[in-house]
Amino acid sequence: MSWNNQNTCANGVSERGFEVQANGRKVPGVYWLPEHADRLVLLGHGGTAHKKVEYIADVARQLAAKGIASMAIDGPGHGDRAGAAAKSEPVDFAKIWNEGGGHNGMLADWRAALDFIETEAGPRPTGIWGLSMGTMMGLPVAATDSRIKVALLGLMGDWGPNSAQLLTLAPQLTCPVRFLMQWDDEIVPRTHCLNLFDAIGSKHKTLHANPGKHQAVPAFEIAGSVDYLDKHL
Amino acid sequence: MSWNNQNTCANGVSERGFEVQANGRKVPGVYWLPEHADRLVLLGHGGTAHKKVEYIADVARQLAAKGIASMAIDGPGHGDRAGAAAKSEPVDFAKIWNEGGGHNGMLADWRAALDFIETEAGPRPTGIWGLSMGTMMGLPVAATDSRIKVALLGLMGDWGPNSAQLLTLAPQLTCPVRFLMQWDDEIVPRTHCLNLFDAIGSKHKTLHANPGKHQAVPAFEIAGSVDYLDKHL
Repeated sequence: MSWNNQNTCANGVSERGFEVQANGRKVPGVYWLPEHADRLVLLGHGGTAHKKVEYIADVARQLAAKGIASMAIDGPGHGDRAGAAAKSEPVDFAKIWNEGGGHNGMLADWRAALDFIETEAGPRPTGIWGLSMGTMMGLPVAATDSRIKVALLGLMGDWGPNSAQLLTLAPQLTCPVRFLMQWDDEIVPRTHCLNLFDAIGSKHKTLHANPGKHQAVPAFEIAGSVDYLDKHL
Repeated sequence: MSWNNQNTCANGVSERGFEVQANGRKVPGVYWLPEHADRLVLLGHGGTAHKKVEYIADVARQLAAKGIASMAIDGPGHGDRAGAAAKSEPVDFAKIWNEGGGHNGMLADWRAALDFIETEAGPRPTGIWGLSMGTMMGLPVAATDSRIKVALLGLMGDWGPNSAQLLTLAPQLTCPVRFLMQWDDEIVPRTHCLNLFDAIGSKHKTLHANPGKHQAVPAFEIAGSVDYLDKHL
């Protein structure tokens, strides 16, 4: 559980690398901190990407501009994890996910990372942002960790290696949720996305659907997702 | 085609009644004008309501605060129309709709009303806002009148007396569209709303779905709908 001295600073936002341990797994993470931050958002990247992929760093910058710190970890079998195999389109996504710790390991990883950041910086109003595999992580985290007060989810359905857990946990969500979907998603079919949105138990939940394929989320929805977290934190 | 001297003014917004004729039908309308307005929105009310029902007047006020004039007419068989029978929940909505002019009459009514306002105030960037029966009117108007540059629609599907025309015209829409739906709509079933959103041809279209019944659209979505029109006009 320590900072790893992989530090940078740009436009007043410091970026610090860290590593935590969970169930014997080393979990690489990154923490973005603007000069003044009284809130925190956890950022979950998508499949085949990593904790500092361009769109995650972009959301981190947009959050920082609103005075919100953020933190990301590499997902199971992804990024800088030992033996990570998901740097390009995975042949067997479920295999990589499960060998990297799977659903329960993922939950332990996020809890360890948030514990570390809270130990370092103190507890703050906290939300989560995650699309695609980021929702395979973010939905269970939001449903099981009472520190999460708002969630931006989407591009996921009752689909993939933890689909059963997603459907079980979605009704347990109580925080406000905005759920993005791509109407012409070629990876997670439309009906699966609608099923998962339907299962979310939160009283305040809103679905936003736009035309286009899985990775074509419009820029205005990304900016809107940051506004949404800013408003609800 | 004239103002009818039913005028009021509140908080800097003047409200002027008018009447136009279309195919021999007298069409009662109302025009809201803030002190400075360089844009116009047509407002379509829902079934059993009328042109000045509380939520229409509320949207008109919110638009006025952004410097946008607005105009509403009573729908077929509604409000102050001769022989209007839809002042309470209609026994036979299709009968009232058809006897009040039906789909084609409705299109003629809106065209006559917009012609009148443009003759009086000149052409301006124009959008349309209509939910439920307001979409039964607003979608066809937006699809057939090239003066309409943006549309806020919803609470409707391939459903009701002009469902065939809605499905025929939706693919012809080209302007940006935001489409609201209520996830637990007890009047227009979910799948019908999704079908109509799916049929919309506009490159830029976004679906917003929230929990609750037909008339329970959250206030933040109404405020957001005004922001949307303001941004796109």
